[in-house]
Amino acid sequence: MNVSGPSRAKRGIPPKSEFNKWYPAIVEIADLVDKRYPIKGMDVWKPYGLTAMGLIDSLARREMYRTGHHEYRFPLLVPEDLLDKENKLVSILKAARESGVDPSELRFDEEASGFKKEVYWVTHGGENKLEKPMFLRPTSETPMYTMFSLWVRSHADLPLKTFQIVNTFRYETKQTRSFIRVREIHFFEAHTVHADQAGADEQIEEDAEMVQRIMHDLCLPSLVSKRPVWDTFPGAWYTKAADVVMPNGRTLQVATYHHYKDQWANAFDLSYEDPEGNTKPCHQTTFGMSERLLGAVVGMHGDDKGLILPPAIAPIQVVVMPIAAHADSNVEPAAKALAERLSASGIRVELDTRDVRPGVKHYDWEIKGVPIRIELGPRDLSAGKFVLTPRTGSKSEIKIDEAEKSVLESLEGLADDLRQREKSLVSDKVQPFPFDNLDYDASQESSIESGIVYQIAFEGNDSDAEFLEKKTGLTLLGECDDEFPEERNCLITGKATKKMQHIARMY
Amino acid sequence: MNVSGPSRAKRGIPPKSEFNKWYPAIVEIADLVDKRYPIKGMDVWKPYGLTAMGLIDSLARREMYRTGHHEYRFPLLVPEDLLDKENKLVSILKAARESGVDPSELRFDEEASGFKKEVYWVTHGGENKLEKPMFLRPTSETPMYTMFSLWVRSHADLPLKTFQIVNTFRYETKQTRSFIRVREIHFFEAHTVHADQAGADEQIEEDAEMVQRIMHDLCLPSLVSKRPVWDTFPGAWYTKAADVVMPNGRTLQVATYHHYKDQWANAFDLSYEDPEGNTKPCHQTTFGMSERLLGAVVGMHGDDKGLILPPAIAPIQVVVMPIAAHADSNVEPAAKALAERLSASGIRVELDTRDVRPGVKHYDWEIKGVPIRIELGPRDLSAGKFVLTPRTGSKSEIKIDEAEKSVLESLEGLADDLRQREKSLVSDKVQPFPFDNLDYDASQESSIESGIVYQIAFEGNDSDAEFLEKKTGLTLLGECDDEFPEERNCLITGKATKKMQHIARMY
Repeated sequence: MNVSGPSRAKRGIPPKSEFNKWYPAIVEIADLVDKRYPIKGMDVWKPYGLTAMGLIDSLARREMYRTGHHEYRFPLLVPEDLLDKENKLVSILKAARESGVDPSELRFDEEASGFKKEVYWVTHGGENKLEKPMFLRPTSETPMYTMFSLWVRSHADLPLKTFQIVNTFRYETKQTRSFIRVREIHFFEAHTVHADQAGADEQIEEDAEMVQRIMHDLCLPSLVSKRPVWDTFPGAWYTKAADVVMPNGRTLQVATYHHYKDQWANAFDLSYEDPEGNTKPCHQTTFGMSERLLGAVVGMHGDDKGLILPPAIAPIQVVVMPIAAHADSNVEPAAKALAERLSASGIRVELDTRDVRPGVKHYDWEIKGVPIRIELGPRDLSAGKFVLTPRTGSKSEIKIDEAEKSVLESLEGLADDLRQREKSLVSDKVQPFPFDNLDYDASQESSIESGIVYQIAFEGNDSDAEFLEKKTGLTLLGECDDEFPEERNCLITGKATKKMQHIARMY
Repeated sequence: MNVSGPSRAKRGIPPKSEFNKWYPAIVEIADLVDKRYPIKGMDVWKPYGLTAMGLIDSLARREMYRTGHHEYRFPLLVPEDLLDKENKLVSILKAARESGVDPSELRFDEEASGFKKEVYWVTHGGENKLEKPMFLRPTSETPMYTMFSLWVRSHADLPLKTFQIVNTFRYETKQTRSFIRVREIHFFEAHTVHADQAGADEQIEEDAEMVQRIMHDLCLPSLVSKRPVWDTFPGAWYTKAADVVMPNGRTLQVATYHHYKDQWANAFDLSYEDPEGNTKPCHQTTFGMSERLLGAVVGMHGDDKGLILPPAIAPIQVVVMPIAAHADSNVEPAAKALAERLSASGIRVELDTRDVRPGVKHYDWEIKGVPIRIELGPRDLSAGKFVLTPRTGSKSEIKIDEAEKSVLESLEGLADDLRQREKSLVSDKVQPFPFDNLDYDASQESSIESGIVYQIAFEGNDSDAEFLEKKTGLTLLGECDDEFPEERNCLITGKATKKMQHIARMY
């Protein structure tokens, strides 16, 4: 592992309390990415960042294999005319709505449809203008469903559970931030096809569980909400999302899962023959995550000294440092043997034998957020011990004979510490709204703090929500799975409700 | 593993002797890719094909880590103005040539420079025309060198050894073929920076060795040639390539490595400070491979029954089939236990308990090219044995107690068989040219067979080579590392030479 970058640069890390300065600085100082590529929002992944992201991908793959999904890879380019199918879908839904179908049943916002304005367009091949323009996928419903309609014929082909991990693109006009808002996105997407709504319902539950397992490994608490209609994925019946409350109180959407019901079936000709020979429309779901997971890890766990990486995704879980090796020729071989033993038990270990002061090594590995540091000097060695220091805690002496067990326990302990710490951070950041209704005046507005996520009782309609967002300057995350234990009055309508929602500044 | 595709489709496989029909059929029948995506040359990777490709990637990563390379990921999009640097390079080399520098020292063809005509252009973001058009990388010298010039400051930063595995794009106007000629390419590229030419020379030797190790795992013999000047990568001092002789006698370039000397240093401002404080230009190399490796594996090893995958990259190395399990309730648990034992010793195993006739199972797994089939029935079980059938050989009875050892030996044996077989196939396909010079007349042309790679003595210049290619209708692969043991007469000039070259139809 090349650590030359940070130690030589000795660039100052802004204090974490100045989060909006700290975050963009640490992603480069810790050598995760280099932002100096000449296109904004397209960073170069350095080996350390890419390895951490690869380990997050492994968590997603583990969940996918466990639940019977298969990995595919679809082309990046999508011909423009496939978008017409999406437009067709929009028309169908619009017509249904106009002909009196309950809009809440459709939960579809025709204004939000299509990605035309958010995609990059390929118009030329060499010096030739292409007959059909193509766009870079922002997500893969359109290319995938085109193929699914060829693959799904009968009930025996269902459920079809697919996923891919690929680069996707969005033409972002907002300010870009590493991992959080980028133009080339390292993206995970699972797409499934089911025989009926019950199958898709189960899938959504499975998705929710997978998100929780992954968030557990990343030591990140999250808020799960059913997004309001206008924030629902185009064509979806409903969208649920997991948001991480970042240290500055802004929420970061890190995972979404969409239930499409059979709303795409017609537009993409996705039907199957049931055991009785009847043609039935397919039901579908999507589950998406991205490099934002790494952004959340960086933002939540790091401190004034640098990153703190959860053991599950730390490229180096343990760094072993021989101390005063020049004074005792047994030290370095013993440190090497210890590193090899730990490595043999599946721990990701780095042996740091650089000829620099221990302080320099501490500084480097703290920046990189390595969970555990082990120091082994002549006196430790003769006592059959080493010194173990978790990135979040204090030193302890460990018997060399018990190295594997102690290190594994310390890794778990550190993960638990992180979970505990972030949970209490989030409970500080999530607070009841300071007013019972929105009749407060301008002089009272200062009671609404910008770094806080507010929990509210809300059962209003779209225009109530619009009013709420305008008045507070915050965004509605949507309905929580949990309800208030007892009825309260809706912040807008005043009606009694148990419905719990959050409003926050979203990334 | 989903095998429903091929067994139900029962699509006929053309005989391998009709290679140009067999190849495009088998890639779909074996469920490696689906070619029905609405853009030609952009196939959908199915799970089986993607897993095999992922295993090839693992071989490349193994070699990269072994030799101290680090994995990066650079953006896909490249701003047009970076190409200007490449154009600047072309001008420099042209000027050098015009001012009397020995062209053979430069070995650079200014006509071949730039990718402008071969790339896809992104011109719009949403509805906005971009100020600077961008192109999809066809390879990453330009984006990488832009960053390398920021990263390399002193001799301590060298050598810089990087690689990435990414999607690249070429606007192909020729006929596309799965894995062999595609428009979205699964690409491997290693890029290195060295302090001097000796460093780059060593890198080229290391690249050559890595290619041979990977080709050994893929059980593929190859011809290695130093490409003629006009087929050298733009900006390279020289290019070496490994070609596989396919069953139809056409050669497929599967790996290239380029020595750039310090020719790019000026254009990309790539210099460093040596220990004495002098500024020196960097020397560079590139090493590239792609999904063509999978194309070569498919094309070379398969037979009339389907694929034959080398054990190193077979997604399933062994399929275990319980036989007559309904007649003896111990069979299926015993088969399962056997599969688990094999799996525990690191073998990739599939247990096939489908309720279909053994013939159907044989058919399915033969198509997929699984190296070893194991059958276990009631009689085998009571004798403490099972039947092992390699995809390339005949049955044998193995003691259940010796399963791991026997299976591992059989996998190695099968790999050796494949190597032996392809070596003899290639030696059939590579033959001496039937004439001593090119003075043969039209009536004699039929002696030149289209499915043969001809070995020739050749020491001529560019115009001799041009004449040679025109007259024979074949392409010069370039100089072999091996020479003829004794001098021969050059096919064109008649001069005595030991220089061995090949001419062939290239893919």
